[in-house]
Amino acid sequence: MPSVNASRKGQEKPREIVDAAEDYAKERYGISSMIQSQEKPDRVLVRVKDLTVEKADDVVWVRARVHTSRAKGKQCFLVLRQQQFNVQALVAVGDHASKQMVKFAANINKESIIDVEGIVRKVNQKIGSCTQQDVELHVQKIYVISLAEPRLPLQLDDAVRPEVEGEEEGRATVNQDTRLDNRVIDLRTSTSQAVFRLQSGICHLFRETLTNKGFVEIQTPKIISDSGDLVPSYDDLWYKGTTKYSSAFKFSFTQDLKYCIIFLWLTVFRAEDSNTHRHLTEFVGLDIEMAFNYHYHEVVEEIADTLVQIFKGLQERFQTEIQTVNKQFPCEPFKFLEPTLRLEYCEALAMLREAGVEMGDEEDLSTPNEKLLGRLVKEKYDTDFYVLDKYPLAVRPFYTMPDPRNPKHSNSYDMFMRGEEILSGAQRIHDPQLLTERALHHGIDLEKIKAYIDSFRFGAPPHAGGGIGLERVTMLFLGLHNVRQTSMFPRDPKRLTP
Amino acid sequence: MPSVNASRKGQEKPREIVDAAEDYAKERYGISSMIQSQEKPDRVLVRVKDLTVEKADDVVWVRARVHTSRAKGKQCFLVLRQQQFNVQALVAVGDHASKQMVKFAANINKESIIDVEGIVRKVNQKIGSCTQQDVELHVQKIYVISLAEPRLPLQLDDAVRPEVEGEEEGRATVNQDTRLDNRVIDLRTSTSQAVFRLQSGICHLFRETLTNKGFVEIQTPKIISDSGDLVPSYDDLWYKGTTKYSSAFKFSFTQDLKYCIIFLWLTVFRAEDSNTHRHLTEFVGLDIEMAFNYHYHEVVEEIADTLVQIFKGLQERFQTEIQTVNKQFPCEPFKFLEPTLRLEYCEALAMLREAGVEMGDEEDLSTPNEKLLGRLVKEKYDTDFYVLDKYPLAVRPFYTMPDPRNPKHSNSYDMFMRGEEILSGAQRIHDPQLLTERALHHGIDLEKIKAYIDSFRFGAPPHAGGGIGLERVTMLFLGLHNVRQTSMFPRDPKRLTP
Repeated sequence: MPSVNASRKGQEKPREIVDAAEDYAKERYGISSMIQSQEKPDRVLVRVKDLTVEKADDVVWVRARVHTSRAKGKQCFLVLRQQQFNVQALVAVGDHASKQMVKFAANINKESIIDVEGIVRKVNQKIGSCTQQDVELHVQKIYVISLAEPRLPLQLDDAVRPEVEGEEEGRATVNQDTRLDNRVIDLRTSTSQAVFRLQSGICHLFRETLTNKGFVEIQTPKIISDSGDLVPSYDDLWYKGTTKYSSAFKFSFTQDLKYCIIFLWLTVFRAEDSNTHRHLTEFVGLDIEMAFNYHYHEVVEEIADTLVQIFKGLQERFQTEIQTVNKQFPCEPFKFLEPTLRLEYCEALAMLREAGVEMGDEEDLSTPNEKLLGRLVKEKYDTDFYVLDKYPLAVRPFYTMPDPRNPKHSNSYDMFMRGEEILSGAQRIHDPQLLTERALHHGIDLEKIKAYIDSFRFGAPPHAGGGIGLERVTMLFLGLHNVRQTSMFPRDPKRLTP
Repeated sequence: MPSVNASRKGQEKPREIVDAAEDYAKERYGISSMIQSQEKPDRVLVRVKDLTVEKADDVVWVRARVHTSRAKGKQCFLVLRQQQFNVQALVAVGDHASKQMVKFAANINKESIIDVEGIVRKVNQKIGSCTQQDVELHVQKIYVISLAEPRLPLQLDDAVRPEVEGEEEGRATVNQDTRLDNRVIDLRTSTSQAVFRLQSGICHLFRETLTNKGFVEIQTPKIISDSGDLVPSYDDLWYKGTTKYSSAFKFSFTQDLKYCIIFLWLTVFRAEDSNTHRHLTEFVGLDIEMAFNYHYHEVVEEIADTLVQIFKGLQERFQTEIQTVNKQFPCEPFKFLEPTLRLEYCEALAMLREAGVEMGDEEDLSTPNEKLLGRLVKEKYDTDFYVLDKYPLAVRPFYTMPDPRNPKHSNSYDMFMRGEEILSGAQRIHDPQLLTERALHHGIDLEKIKAYIDSFRFGAPPHAGGGIGLERVTMLFLGLHNVRQTSMFPRDPKRLTP
């Protein structure tokens, strides 16, 4: 690697590294020229998490970010970070390092990426502030690969501080807008790393469970005709109303995968002006649609079991991540029953009324009532997860199958985690005539949904399904309070960047 | 199950089933009332693929579609289909079936879904036209669950007929627009079932391979600010230009997953008026972005190996599907080398020039030249898959890293299957200053890409990546000729439905 003390044109060099005239270590540090794939050096970079006592006395190369640096006389202590791991490094005046080199190291801006060559040394006293507690790195060479600007828009240590410490001890924390405006940096914190690793685990467990159950993964279009007009020349695409019928559309798309069932993975765009802690204009939907034999509860049981398998998998495989997030956002472990509790809407109404809530039989649950119900269910059944079945027909979309026993009820359900809805689903009407009747009842223009209704004219099995909101599951499993924490780059009516 | 001879209001009953007065079998057939989850009968439905000689003489219930029916005196032969499996069923006048019942069975419209109770009987002569060749079903009860309309917009047997038979023998085939207009039915053919099962396999193998390599799956937003203006109230969302910088954006989004690398899964919308066999306005991108140590070839090797693992996995696990598709669309098996062949652009130019093509050094490959090159490479190296490296800088996006050895070249590459591009990728510029220079050179408004450039100001590792077009990989692996065959509901400038 060509490493040069001269900085690249325009890249600002840390100050005070000028008088290098009589510097015996001058080849051992500096700012590297930009890596442009000039060459393929025969150099192995060791990962920070692999720096353990087994490597004691080895000379290794490591690439990492400067997490903190602290100069102290003739020494400089750095904490080097790589993802969720970090290690202490020491640059000390001696055979390898000159006074100028120590100064250089001490002046590297935090978050810069550096290559260091060093000897792994076992330490006598555990280094409590690092994940690699038993070793430190005695630096022999140090080169800046990518220099960070000197002023960070937020400090990583502030960004992982529990709010209560901020409030009670007056220490700095970072507010949500600052985080989101600087998400590229906020994503580097141990909390963010844990959140998104766990989220990736949810995706994996979802697919693993459904594949084992015999589902087939499919891809459906996000661009759906709404107005019936073709979009003029596709110059501007638009998506208004894609959510309206999309869940129902999916099955019509794929009905011959019946029996074997299907699962979907899609991005849902909402054209709603919802500014709440749990609404985004774009979210990831984990969707399940399934033909059943005689009763939609066959589907409810499959979906609920899929969620239970996800919860179990997370608790088994992601304890480290859960604990990392809990350090900043303390929370009770997530509780669930097997089999999953299924309550009917009228039972829920009775519980709420007993608690003093006044609600009509055909009224939908407000957010506060959802949360209250969650607390009542937790008290009575000791579970954070349950299914609420048989919603009033009046509050569900036109394609929802009415309940044959009670015309004011429907074969539809929501699922809740810690008192918040994470899935909405139903038996979908598979009969073109009933579907037409219900669409007319809802005042829907039949022309706009012609393709949808027609798709049931050539034999369609009874089917049901639902869509799981990925970001909400992550949020509620971890006991977080805003869905923006679990969306990598959240989009809401007020946020379109970064 | 309540099964009634009286048809549901408005649902047309097969004709000539009127004089049921003295019908001793009248309880044994009919049109069921719509399945609305009225009850949970204790009935096991056996899958068609499980109807084998082991079940001989068992009485079973089966739900399937009527694929064909053929009446013959006092008998009616049905072929019952379930996904890619089918079985012969016989309704014959006797103890269980009356004359009227046979007539009823013979008049059920094709594609209707029915429940039958029958005895599994071993047959003496194999039934060549069915997947279940050793048994047939002797029907005792037959009920229509969902009645198809009498006139199908296309015949499934025509839809799987090889074009050559259509041309040489004058037999009916189905043209692409008819297929796509009636995709819900077209997806029921054995060819479509095989195509989309294999495609689901590609997705699975892609993730399996990358998870084993230590990648983390992430979700990035599809809604990206282009003009810098916030979209007015999100009432109509628009996405113009999302593809322009999206591949580069992805990395900036997630740079602290460096070393461990990332993979993405996204829907890409193109705002292009491309009416070709290989362009869609919406496709599924399997994207890989990865920080590397010193040379972007580290990334090229990872991506190429991922594709090789997919090819191997498909050939190992999906032979049935490949052969099913080959029956209709014959094609040579897909060939590839290990390690993958990597050619430089100037070598390709030399090969093309030797074959008589006139091309400038900085000219991009036209589609015909891409295909010709594919044939030349196949002849010379015997591979259907290769990497073309070091594209002219002039034909690549602004964020492409220039080649340090030659200012007219770039650190960028495409990957090809059977002479067609399936991936485009590059080392991305990670230095904000060089990125600014290159954007200005391309006449790009810096204001619009401010968030992108700024994301590199706080330390960014060198990185490279690329996006794989899922539908193209499926098409070219199977040797198909139009990407609309491998998109479940394709979207192009002229098609927005179904």
